[in-house]
Amino acid sequence: MSRQQRDALDAMLRSAPRSETQPTPEEQRSGFTAALTRPAPEDVVTRSAVLGGRPALELEPAEVHGRGRLLYLHGGGYVVGSPDTHAGLVGELARRAGLRATSVDYRLAPEHPFPAAVDDGLAAYRELLATGTDPQDLVMAGDSAGGGLSIATLLAAREAGLPQPAAVVLFSPWVDLTLAGESIRSKEDADPIFTEADMRAYADLYVGAGDRAHPLASPVFAALTGLPPLLVQVGANEVLLDDAVRLAARAAADDVEVTLETGPGLPHVFQHHYGRLDEADAALDRAARFLTAHLGAGLPGADRFAPAR
Amino acid sequence: MSRQQRDALDAMLRSAPRSETQPTPEEQRSGFTAALTRPAPEDVVTRSAVLGGRPALELEPAEVHGRGRLLYLHGGGYVVGSPDTHAGLVGELARRAGLRATSVDYRLAPEHPFPAAVDDGLAAYRELLATGTDPQDLVMAGDSAGGGLSIATLLAAREAGLPQPAAVVLFSPWVDLTLAGESIRSKEDADPIFTEADMRAYADLYVGAGDRAHPLASPVFAALTGLPPLLVQVGANEVLLDDAVRLAARAAADDVEVTLETGPGLPHVFQHHYGRLDEADAALDRAARFLTAHLGAGLPGADRFAPAR
Repeated sequence: MSRQQRDALDAMLRSAPRSETQPTPEEQRSGFTAALTRPAPEDVVTRSAVLGGRPALELEPAEVHGRGRLLYLHGGGYVVGSPDTHAGLVGELARRAGLRATSVDYRLAPEHPFPAAVDDGLAAYRELLATGTDPQDLVMAGDSAGGGLSIATLLAAREAGLPQPAAVVLFSPWVDLTLAGESIRSKEDADPIFTEADMRAYADLYVGAGDRAHPLASPVFAALTGLPPLLVQVGANEVLLDDAVRLAARAAADDVEVTLETGPGLPHVFQHHYGRLDEADAALDRAARFLTAHLGAGLPGADRFAPAR
Repeated sequence: MSRQQRDALDAMLRSAPRSETQPTPEEQRSGFTAALTRPAPEDVVTRSAVLGGRPALELEPAEVHGRGRLLYLHGGGYVVGSPDTHAGLVGELARRAGLRATSVDYRLAPEHPFPAAVDDGLAAYRELLATGTDPQDLVMAGDSAGGGLSIATLLAAREAGLPQPAAVVLFSPWVDLTLAGESIRSKEDADPIFTEADMRAYADLYVGAGDRAHPLASPVFAALTGLPPLLVQVGANEVLLDDAVRLAARAAADDVEVTLETGPGLPHVFQHHYGRLDEADAALDRAARFLTAHLGAGLPGADRFAPAR
């Protein structure tokens, strides 16, 4: 338990200034970058790359086990965020899992609305396979909009006849742009970051007048059959709580192996707060073990999720 | 993966004879006992006891860690089953967790309808506390109706002003006697054990003309605030899949720490099939780790669920 840590985090998040007028996307990006960016851990080397025709950030931990590869899609409502803002989070996950990671700078709305992000996600995934990555050595992860985008990318890959990766981890995924979850309203007071209006504004910028229930924009409405084992982590103090819960329910009904983890007092993508929130570190460790366990028996560390007699 | 094991189990379960006429409760109990009973593991000593005024079975593994104590409530639709039928399952969980366990022979319907089982569950829980068990050393588990009964017992304990235990594990809990879950129909073909009619017959015997939505009969409709950390495991080939999913959703919304695990191709209380189904052994190991991790830092083994750097 870390009640004090959670309360302090909640107060810190609530103290963030909120502008009276709707900021421009560029202002939103600057604000997000200033507020959220954490650098990659010291023992993770980063380098610029290109994947699927888009800029990307490669993150290589000092200790790498086996041939595993992590493809990461960052969050930010499809409007803000970048591999740089998420270098700390992705680096921490990569380091704990002992995996090389690539974080893709997919195109953002409103300049590039739906389905540009999905196209970029699929192009990145396709290039990893085309350049020799065995799908059994490949895992994916994403947070918030990047969580929804991860599922959309895998649905697009399925439609394209590509094989699925070994496992997926989602931190507080946003998978319903119609905002139909009960928590969108019931958790609005508890959520220190987002209101319903915030989420609606992001959806407006990403989908505009398009179909918000399209399965590649709102994968909670998709048939998820054939997707790989899925770990979904979410906080209870989130308007997006029900996105995670309903995605897990949908996946379970569609015969996907699912683990859903929720915790009280935790905000949206609480994993960002590793090093200052015990639940964040524990969640990242569980996520790392989940990924390595599903990479197959050939990898050291795979037995960490296996039976302990 | 154990596709062959799962298919063989499914075929075995489907081959069980089904009587044309509704058997009496006594016939149901004999049939259940014959089909399901597995003895306690060799390294677990069992002895008869009395707890809360009811017969009980104590199970003590050869290797016990710390002062932890497991209270177990068996399944069987509130009509069949006993500590003897579940000695193998409870013994395996106790052995893997290194915990002394007590499995209660609560009164069964139709001879003793709702809320007799809840009264017995609460009496057992109350006596454990009254005889000196620290609630932080106490964990609970139950399967099927015993899973619903575990939650009902903790709700009754909360109403009685008693403290909550350290954690709860539920295998395929039955928590909605109104049968409102979508899977009651959508998974009927996939479920090799139960039909909607089977579940309705159990509910008829347990609640009769009473209120099936009563929170102590159907805890999916209860406010779950204040309950301890909860691990829910369920198979995808179950009419009760949505009982587990909706209980996890309810608990998450009510700020309870929840982990939900579902797996494709798995039948109701698949953990019964330890030793012949890999998923059963892995699930029991995870359940054991979950229980010991929540018993507190003082216990050996508690770090097995903690961060691995």
